[in-house]
Amino acid sequence: MEFPRTERNNVKRVPSRGIYDKENIYTIVDQALICFVGFSIENQPFVIPTIHARKNDTIYLHGATTSRMIKHLEAGNRLCLTVTHLDGLVLARSVFHHSMNYRSAMLYGSGRQADEKEKLLALEIITEKLIPGRWKDARTPNEKELKATSIIAVDIEEASAKIRTGGPNDDEDDYNLKVWAGVIPICQDFNKPVDDKLLQPGIDFPDYLNKFYEK
Amino acid sequence: MEFPRTERNNVKRVPSRGIYDKENIYTIVDQALICFVGFSIENQPFVIPTIHARKNDTIYLHGATTSRMIKHLEAGNRLCLTVTHLDGLVLARSVFHHSMNYRSAMLYGSGRQADEKEKLLALEIITEKLIPGRWKDARTPNEKELKATSIIAVDIEEASAKIRTGGPNDDEDDYNLKVWAGVIPICQDFNKPVDDKLLQPGIDFPDYLNKFYEK
Repeated sequence: MEFPRTERNNVKRVPSRGIYDKENIYTIVDQALICFVGFSIENQPFVIPTIHARKNDTIYLHGATTSRMIKHLEAGNRLCLTVTHLDGLVLARSVFHHSMNYRSAMLYGSGRQADEKEKLLALEIITEKLIPGRWKDARTPNEKELKATSIIAVDIEEASAKIRTGGPNDDEDDYNLKVWAGVIPICQDFNKPVDDKLLQPGIDFPDYLNKFYEK
Repeated sequence: MEFPRTERNNVKRVPSRGIYDKENIYTIVDQALICFVGFSIENQPFVIPTIHARKNDTIYLHGATTSRMIKHLEAGNRLCLTVTHLDGLVLARSVFHHSMNYRSAMLYGSGRQADEKEKLLALEIITEKLIPGRWKDARTPNEKELKATSIIAVDIEEASAKIRTGGPNDDEDDYNLKVWAGVIPICQDFNKPVDDKLLQPGIDFPDYLNKFYEK
């Protein structure tokens, strides 16, 4: 399914890189560890990095009930939520055609406060999205912790993504230049887990976390 | 030197993680490959990932003269520029105390259009920041390319950073739980460079790019 193309989400620069179908956009969103939430208070924009998770066409964000971002979004204000994966530096023969390979998505909507039932579900979704299996292992939130946490639900109204892949696109005349050109891939990876200093003896690294360790 | 603390840049959530001195903030900014630029047009926030570079207290951004972001910032509108390095998933014994290790900075200011002289200098700074040595090797911008490119200069008015390091901080009662706790480090790295398919024979990977390759 495609998002409608509007003045807001239309990819203007290099339109051939624009993506509007939900499947591709949501793949980019779901694979990102964090997102960047943009909002504006009294003409001052703010961009806050935060953890996110998605259920269908809704994005969940969480934070302390006292946080400026949470309070602003709870009030129903508009936001833009951007995620970006960097995949490579693209070195062309000319400075002008240098680029990056990336997968990036921008989502638009307004915030609303999740109710108590949706809150617990959202916390589970956020936890499981980052660390599948963790919800069943760790101690789940108690009443006091739930009270201190707010969940913002963002029903996605519009979205688009932009992807660049492949090598440089140089000007015809520049291919003769004696300049190295190509791609230097960029990756985000996990390193060997570090036990907490206060970990009790006999607690092994659990199987469900192996996806991080074995990478 | 410290940035003054204002309502805008004051770190409210976990104030002990707040950083206001230029040296630490600029280290975070300079080490990031991209930044996230937040601005607002007619009450709709936007967050755009883009390449940045810094000279003293000025950040340079570049883009096509036709870009929405560039046109908006050239007009002197306010922005927020955020960079974030993810350093680890922090797994606590309780869901509530899960966290991430990170280094993040938020910069505030207004855009202005760089003049022709500053433009070429900024393009060199941006290029060299990402790929030191590249400016002297690749073909530098010609007149037509310079005309198609705009440089936005952002003189930083306020800024702050926030850093989290170390293991989880659990509630006293939870340390007895039989739950693995610790940190799963996250890193961003470069993989082996890929030659452009149209690379002429006899062009070796240059020494000045070894910082990517030998990692």
